[in-house]
Amino acid sequence: MLKAIIMIIDLAFTPEELEKKDLLGKSVVVIDALRATTTMTVAFENGAGAFIPVATVEEARDLVARNPDFLLAGERRALPLEGFHLGNSPRDYRPDRVKGKTIVMTTTNGTRALVAARGGAEVFIGSFLNLTTLSNRLIEAGRDVLIACSGEKGLFCLEDTVCGGAIVERLEKTGRELVKTDAAHAAKVLYEQCEGNVYGLLCTCEWGVYLEGLGLGKDVRICAQVDSSRVVPVYREGRIFLDR
Amino acid sequence: MLKAIIMIIDLAFTPEELEKKDLLGKSVVVIDALRATTTMTVAFENGAGAFIPVATVEEARDLVARNPDFLLAGERRALPLEGFHLGNSPRDYRPDRVKGKTIVMTTTNGTRALVAARGGAEVFIGSFLNLTTLSNRLIEAGRDVLIACSGEKGLFCLEDTVCGGAIVERLEKTGRELVKTDAAHAAKVLYEQCEGNVYGLLCTCEWGVYLEGLGLGKDVRICAQVDSSRVVPVYREGRIFLDR
Repeated sequence: MLKAIIMIIDLAFTPEELEKKDLLGKSVVVIDALRATTTMTVAFENGAGAFIPVATVEEARDLVARNPDFLLAGERRALPLEGFHLGNSPRDYRPDRVKGKTIVMTTTNGTRALVAARGGAEVFIGSFLNLTTLSNRLIEAGRDVLIACSGEKGLFCLEDTVCGGAIVERLEKTGRELVKTDAAHAAKVLYEQCEGNVYGLLCTCEWGVYLEGLGLGKDVRICAQVDSSRVVPVYREGRIFLDR
Repeated sequence: MLKAIIMIIDLAFTPEELEKKDLLGKSVVVIDALRATTTMTVAFENGAGAFIPVATVEEARDLVARNPDFLLAGERRALPLEGFHLGNSPRDYRPDRVKGKTIVMTTTNGTRALVAARGGAEVFIGSFLNLTTLSNRLIEAGRDVLIACSGEKGLFCLEDTVCGGAIVERLEKTGRELVKTDAAHAAKVLYEQCEGNVYGLLCTCEWGVYLEGLGLGKDVRICAQVDSSRVVPVYREGRIFLDR
């Protein structure tokens, strides 16, 4: 593939910003660091076959009713849904539960960003767990990069932005010549300010405080395990899976 | 007035984010640092009577046609509009042109943020020029604060966010107990990273580079004149003016 000399790195703080951007020919990275994209990464580490993200609880139920082998997973406002096999805690996705399984998942914020990301040349799933492996794959692809934060109900959230900024920082470290937009620059500054203390950041951001209040502090700790994974899930034709 | 012990400080990066937030009972600060809110501040320093912000060029023309004493002002993508008396450059608003005048103004991004801000208890016009005076006025009002960045075509822009972050920093310096949202925290971090070099920031952000490319570098320099003004324009019942 012909690689452009300069890579442009952009970032959308919310799915709505993403919807306004031109995705054509770009590598898009979807981030929902607390917790959906972290949970997916853990699930693939534990042998999950694929995720099918859907927007509504009804859609999820319907799809699993027609495919009884599938697992039904998701949450609303971090709370479990009745009759679902799995929530959105990475601790739910143990090897004995998810190995080889197709998981239909609906979450509060992550799904909308995934849907908005579909126009990209490739769509990757990012979290603090796979920062370095993901960044290497973006360099290898050689395309312009658009980082898509899931945000919180259409609004900015700090944890996804900082995670995006960590990807910007790693891309720059490779020595590849980058042009950063205002948003990508801002995200990198925010990452650098808490580098080395991602866990502290996740404990003090709004959504992290909310999760802690629900007794989900263990999940927050898992979401802060920087570079603990080498999987890079891709989202293609409605499914999230490992393509290598 | 009864003042709450704790002030909550929030920030919207774009008018669309602002539209999702609850403005009731809050002090709202509208920022379009490059250049609309800077230009307004300069105009008031030079004796302007009032601004009437309107959304469209047609509306502006129509209003001035019916009120021949009014001045017609504005821009699209930083370019002048045919038949308008004034553009969006602070250098246009000399005392001999604006003293005592009512100015009908339409700009690319600033107007939408103003419209979205109307639900606030009070709406103030902010820029780097009036940071400290404005912050003191916010403390005096004692209300929760929502900083409304105009952004660029519905997307994040760095200069408005950094200006908002400077307000957060000044509010904190007063010793008043504040609770910052993720967005307000992020803005403050971004400000601190370029504190002491606001001009450098304005020259390197996307819109600043665009303005420089149009030969408007002098305007960028004016927009960076931190705390050069003591006026705090307010937006009330469709007009922007000085109420004290």
